[in-house]
Amino acid sequence: MCEANAYLNTVEGKEELLMEGVNILRPDKDGVYLRSIFGEQKVVKARIKEMQLLEHRIILEGDGGSI
Amino acid sequence: MCEANAYLNTVEGKEELLMEGVNILRPDKDGVYLRSIFGEQKVVKARIKEMQLLEHRIILEGDGGSI
Repeated sequence: MCEANAYLNTVEGKEELLMEGVNILRPDKDGVYLRSIFGEQKVVKARIKEMQLLEHRIILEGDGGSI
Repeated sequence: MCEANAYLNTVEGKEELLMEGVNILRPDKDGVYLRSIFGEQKVVKARIKEMQLLEHRIILEGDGGSI
C-alpha cells in the first residue's frame, strides 16, 4: 500500500518520525492534519516541506507541537 | 509504485487532472512544485488542499496557472 511516514524537520535541524502509515494529509491555517491507516489522527504545528512518494516520505517543518 | 495523480480544484468548482505519476511535491511561497516519475516538472499557482495516499490522489486548489 502507498501510505507514507511523516517526518518533522525541527528547528534544531533534527529529523523526527511523527507518524507512520499516513494516508490522509490536509494543511490548514495553523498546521497540518494527519491521519494514518491505523486510525491515528494528529494536527501538528508544521508546514509541508516536501513529499517523496516513491520513498514513502512526507517531510514537515515547524515546531511540531500539537494543536 | 506509489506515485499519485495531482488534481486541481478550480475556482469554478471543477476538478482537472494536472499531472499523472507525481513523485516529488514541494510547496513554495507562490505555488507548488511537482515532479513526476516520467520526468515532467511543473510549478503551479495553487496550494495543497488534501492528499489521499491510498487513493493515489493529490488535490490542489488555486488558479493552477504556470509560474
